[in-house]
Amino acid sequence: MELDVIARDGRARRGRLHTAHGAIDTPAFMPVATQASVKGILPSQLREIGAQIVLSNAYHLHLRPGEELIQSLGGLHRFMGWDGPILTDSGGYQIFSLEGLRKVTDDGVEFRSHLDGRKLFLTPEEVVRIQVRLGVDILMPLDECLPPTADAAAMRAALRRTLDWVRRSQAEPLGPGQNLFAIVQGGLSPELRRECAAALVPLGFPGYAVGGLSVGEEKKVTLELADLTAAHLPEDRPRYLMGVGLPEDLIRFVGMGYDLFDCVLPTRNGRNGTVFTWMGKMNIRLARHARDPEPIDPECACYACRNFSRAYLRHLAAAGEMLAPQLASLHNLHFYQELMRQMREQIAAGRFASWAASRLAALNAELA
Amino acid sequence: MELDVIARDGRARRGRLHTAHGAIDTPAFMPVATQASVKGILPSQLREIGAQIVLSNAYHLHLRPGEELIQSLGGLHRFMGWDGPILTDSGGYQIFSLEGLRKVTDDGVEFRSHLDGRKLFLTPEEVVRIQVRLGVDILMPLDECLPPTADAAAMRAALRRTLDWVRRSQAEPLGPGQNLFAIVQGGLSPELRRECAAALVPLGFPGYAVGGLSVGEEKKVTLELADLTAAHLPEDRPRYLMGVGLPEDLIRFVGMGYDLFDCVLPTRNGRNGTVFTWMGKMNIRLARHARDPEPIDPECACYACRNFSRAYLRHLAAAGEMLAPQLASLHNLHFYQELMRQMREQIAAGRFASWAASRLAALNAELA
Repeated sequence: MELDVIARDGRARRGRLHTAHGAIDTPAFMPVATQASVKGILPSQLREIGAQIVLSNAYHLHLRPGEELIQSLGGLHRFMGWDGPILTDSGGYQIFSLEGLRKVTDDGVEFRSHLDGRKLFLTPEEVVRIQVRLGVDILMPLDECLPPTADAAAMRAALRRTLDWVRRSQAEPLGPGQNLFAIVQGGLSPELRRECAAALVPLGFPGYAVGGLSVGEEKKVTLELADLTAAHLPEDRPRYLMGVGLPEDLIRFVGMGYDLFDCVLPTRNGRNGTVFTWMGKMNIRLARHARDPEPIDPECACYACRNFSRAYLRHLAAAGEMLAPQLASLHNLHFYQELMRQMREQIAAGRFASWAASRLAALNAELA
Repeated sequence: MELDVIARDGRARRGRLHTAHGAIDTPAFMPVATQASVKGILPSQLREIGAQIVLSNAYHLHLRPGEELIQSLGGLHRFMGWDGPILTDSGGYQIFSLEGLRKVTDDGVEFRSHLDGRKLFLTPEEVVRIQVRLGVDILMPLDECLPPTADAAAMRAALRRTLDWVRRSQAEPLGPGQNLFAIVQGGLSPELRRECAAALVPLGFPGYAVGGLSVGEEKKVTLELADLTAAHLPEDRPRYLMGVGLPEDLIRFVGMGYDLFDCVLPTRNGRNGTVFTWMGKMNIRLARHARDPEPIDPECACYACRNFSRAYLRHLAAAGEMLAPQLASLHNLHFYQELMRQMREQIAAGRFASWAASRLAALNAELA
């Protein structure tokens, strides 16, 4: 899996990734389907808004309904009715965020299910095998995620283990057309980030993710670390910045040369009534929208903006109607897809920097 | 508004009703949009499944967001993004089902809002004016709904008042293209039902509803009263049986000559995981569906049945994903629309009775 680079503009790249389930135009945003469902959104709607790949979670699907059940029904694509590419996160981040006791050894990690408290043990090999059974296009290895407050010695030990685990993950056989990415960790240390990338790149992965950022540190730090880490990654492989972010963040990260993104914000915010617009965020529940005949965003061509006023959406939210989170999530995901589409267009036209400056100004983003 | 009768088969009629917002092929089922939204379903999906008219509720919209707000935004059609016909129930049934004190006088009804407890007073005239402001195609008058356990004297008094109210409702001016139906009440008394119909028919309404049935009485009683009441209604006007029912009930009521129906069952059951099939109802949450690769109903062509297995729907429901109630509601509404479509087809072909017998047998319905 090479990144077919179609155009470059500064460090930003407009590319295409080919998978067994179709191509992905990059930079791309992956809607999040943690439990094999993008919350409130049909696969046909994902297609309509231009999504080309979705992200699911191996840990969540392992717990419920189980990868063997999904495999016996023809794999994750058929199970969730999505015939485009799928990337699964390993769930390492989720496992290491769980409350309660957790025991990490060189062999793997012991933890308790967040669903029923039963004790589970996962090795890096098993995490790959779960994703092989799911039949996804892009797999992520298990890694040890420490909180950003961990000390340097703990960070270095976790990194050593993560590198050992990724080598063991790489030794597991994959299914046809499957690709295992590596994840650059290293907490908030520029030196550890460099070391981790330097150890991973010679192993020759089809793609490189950057994990453990935007986990509570200052925005300025996130941007600096994302920037310097990207510089350590190969030019001809896709770069996936995990779990970020706001629209203004995505514009900056694309400018650094990242190609893939995922984030729960469009759907989670949508469920709370927060919608994204080219003028910034807006809470549709506020009384000020009660009589507003305008759509969420007059620039937007999504189904919600073509058909409904802010007043109607506010009424739905106030009345507790399911259609409120559905329409707000649909709008937000459409907004993110349109943001990526515009970035691809601007990179191809060699106008990314000026477009980004004007969009960032309109979004009223504070420069970090 | 006359009923354009295209075909008759026994007492069943296949017809067409013309409104300012398009035609309705009858017998027709109206999805319920109490608060200006069919729960979990987009207007474009209503169109896709063949719905031609939706039902909303004047009382609910009066309380929130208020008919003046809706009128100021261009009326209910534009507000909810549905350009087909809309019928509003008056909300009399809801008002008379409210807990707590309620005072009925000849003038109108005093009650407390179910949202915030504030005291409200509605007259029959005001209830018509609310619906005129909403701009709906078919309006329903305020009536006094007694529980089926009320004694004969109370029933007769309520009926006298309801007849007085409907005359006052009829005297209110309507907007262009609007139609006020009358409602036949009379509780569980065949004699009162006959008297009520005999009083209403000479007043010349464009359509006649039958209310106060299926409110707790035995199914046998519902069927008998619906049957005898239909016989008192004019042949050339649409007959609307309010708030029913199960698929097997609709088949029987169409056989009696009813044309319009509404019911919350498809969406309410869908939200609980209960789905309708040609073999009867099924609860998609049950463990027995965990590995089932079949769609909800192999005979069904809805989006959910074309794309997803029972196993996936069961997983969504178990995981608490919004898509579970959305897909189950979509399937159920599609099922109801398909049921009506088949009935229209069978009536036109003169095969309704044999079709009904075979469908009722398959649905395993107990003959009342």
